[in-house]
Amino acid sequence: MRKGTGKLIAASPSVCADVLYAGGFNAPDEVLYFETGREKGLILSQLEYARGREEARKTVRVWSRETFLEDDQEDRSDRAVLLNLSRRFGVTEWSVPASFPLLTADFLRSNGVGVTAAGGEFFPKRLVKTAAELREIAKAEAVTEESMRYARDLIRQARVNSRGFLMLGGRVFTCDMLRSEIEGFLKSRGYTASQTITSCGRAASQPHNLGSGPLMAGEPIVCDIFPRSDRSGYWGDMTRTFCKGKASAIVRKAFAAVVKGSETALSMIRSGVCAAEVHLAAAETMAAAGFPTGRNAEGIPCGFIHGLGHGLGLEIHEGPRVSPLNRKALVKGNVVSVEPGLYDPAWGGIRLEDIVAVTENGCRNFNTMEKELELP
Amino acid sequence: MRKGTGKLIAASPSVCADVLYAGGFNAPDEVLYFETGREKGLILSQLEYARGREEARKTVRVWSRETFLEDDQEDRSDRAVLLNLSRRFGVTEWSVPASFPLLTADFLRSNGVGVTAAGGEFFPKRLVKTAAELREIAKAEAVTEESMRYARDLIRQARVNSRGFLMLGGRVFTCDMLRSEIEGFLKSRGYTASQTITSCGRAASQPHNLGSGPLMAGEPIVCDIFPRSDRSGYWGDMTRTFCKGKASAIVRKAFAAVVKGSETALSMIRSGVCAAEVHLAAAETMAAAGFPTGRNAEGIPCGFIHGLGHGLGLEIHEGPRVSPLNRKALVKGNVVSVEPGLYDPAWGGIRLEDIVAVTENGCRNFNTMEKELELP
Repeated sequence: MRKGTGKLIAASPSVCADVLYAGGFNAPDEVLYFETGREKGLILSQLEYARGREEARKTVRVWSRETFLEDDQEDRSDRAVLLNLSRRFGVTEWSVPASFPLLTADFLRSNGVGVTAAGGEFFPKRLVKTAAELREIAKAEAVTEESMRYARDLIRQARVNSRGFLMLGGRVFTCDMLRSEIEGFLKSRGYTASQTITSCGRAASQPHNLGSGPLMAGEPIVCDIFPRSDRSGYWGDMTRTFCKGKASAIVRKAFAAVVKGSETALSMIRSGVCAAEVHLAAAETMAAAGFPTGRNAEGIPCGFIHGLGHGLGLEIHEGPRVSPLNRKALVKGNVVSVEPGLYDPAWGGIRLEDIVAVTENGCRNFNTMEKELELP
Repeated sequence: MRKGTGKLIAASPSVCADVLYAGGFNAPDEVLYFETGREKGLILSQLEYARGREEARKTVRVWSRETFLEDDQEDRSDRAVLLNLSRRFGVTEWSVPASFPLLTADFLRSNGVGVTAAGGEFFPKRLVKTAAELREIAKAEAVTEESMRYARDLIRQARVNSRGFLMLGGRVFTCDMLRSEIEGFLKSRGYTASQTITSCGRAASQPHNLGSGPLMAGEPIVCDIFPRSDRSGYWGDMTRTFCKGKASAIVRKAFAAVVKGSETALSMIRSGVCAAEVHLAAAETMAAAGFPTGRNAEGIPCGFIHGLGHGLGLEIHEGPRVSPLNRKALVKGNVVSVEPGLYDPAWGGIRLEDIVAVTENGCRNFNTMEKELELP
């Protein structure tokens, strides 16, 4: 690092993975993190100071914000702390994340301290997971898969009433009940999930529709489960699509196309492959199977209407993206989702998602659960 | 709004309450929201477009991001969308939240579009809750209180073994088990809690220490529960401190001081009172009871080491703050926590937190649960 320069973050670790990664300390409110020369520091309020000294990374020095405020100073905001920090350490140019708060940046600039937002990753190392990180992700994905098997077993156990509604324990089995069961299962294992997708039928044609109302036999049920470990902060993410009883011919055909799209992508992923090419190959596979991407008569996007995958770690969606917009190569240690899907309001949606780690010669799939559509 | 000006947000609704509030639409990834003249718009990706049209506020028009990109345009980032949006609507000056991402702001500025971060609240209306919002908060706080009673009952049910450990169902009852029970209770009711504080003894002297290890008889157990409604996005927040069996004389004395601090604050809150004065009165009450704020011999902050309260709504911590730094008056419709506490590594910590709505002549306390220390 050049003299007079440094890296700076002002954000809540519960929201900003960069500061959680760098400081190793979680808190609900904004904390300040900086690096300059050999110094790495975390600046905490009184409220967090004692805990920070115990919990933060050992390579990071924990400071109290009062250290950077004069006793009689009126402005006691984080901006004032940062200005004094810059002066104390002689930093005239900070590099900050793209998401750095504009008001804070403008305040520092107007006081003669340069602030430049990084265009790409702020900590490129986050894209390449260490062995310890891979273990945390493997753990999170294993628990996620356990909850998926639990969801599948509930759908299997359900009976179907004369109107085609799923019934469980004598009650109509709804999307909300299935979500609640999955999230409760995870919570009791130390994982927090919310906004879990358990959508059925037409609603499943909107990839992020959470789903509501009764689960229906003969319709695709999309289960997209993405919990975060309360302890480590790492995420799991997995999707399967089920159908209670017989699916329609079009849904069966779409499911087979998505399975093929997934297989195509999984067979291509290895260190050095262009991310966009993996997406495009999966898209072509599904188009060739009869499901091109475009808009229907009402202008609603149909087909494969999202990227094939995203990185996953301390953020649920992080780099590298596996989409037509990312022409870069995947490298060993990247962890990405592989989640082709097909959507059409005429029949619903299908999505199948695994999490894989990119290796030298291929990829390691953290998921072992089969991709089966129809459940008895 | 002046011609050529507008309001702009670029953020994920799951993280940024302003955009959730304005658009009425939740999503995991960044969305774009703007107001100019009479137009209010939400710009969504293909992935979210159809759902957005159904779920967003009816006063907000939903646009597809492709509308603001040329077919052959290489840069398909949100920044490019925002530049085209500015040109299309003739906006030359955007007002944005303090947290607006710096990289995006600098891009717009370098292309001749002004961007100014709001120093205070971006939507001041958020500070004054509507009747509908008060109902959502009341619901969230009622469920939070139910979970607190559940936690208290578990501690009551526990037995104490010969080493002073709490035992439940034949196992050592730990901080983590209590947290898991509380969070599972809430999850099954459609509320997500994580990082729930269930700390005991010395750990409780750090206000945000989550707690780990066995719950001990005769030590203060701080339970701070803050779940978010999965449906509405509004938060609850509540703290009680319990002791299984007899507490030490100093803990009993500190508990009585915090109860007095709470009563002092609750009796002062009404439309027009200065927020800082409420904090200071609670602090003085506790100091007069023998618990001044300062540092111990090791330099660790002790006493009442945080603000008395914070606003609560779509964010767990929002305006108005009830702290020495906020000299403004509270007004009718504000919702704030009242959470005096005392902390000392020598004996642990005590915190008691209620949520109240400020009214014309006083406040409405959403909590009814007694403040009792010792449990049989």
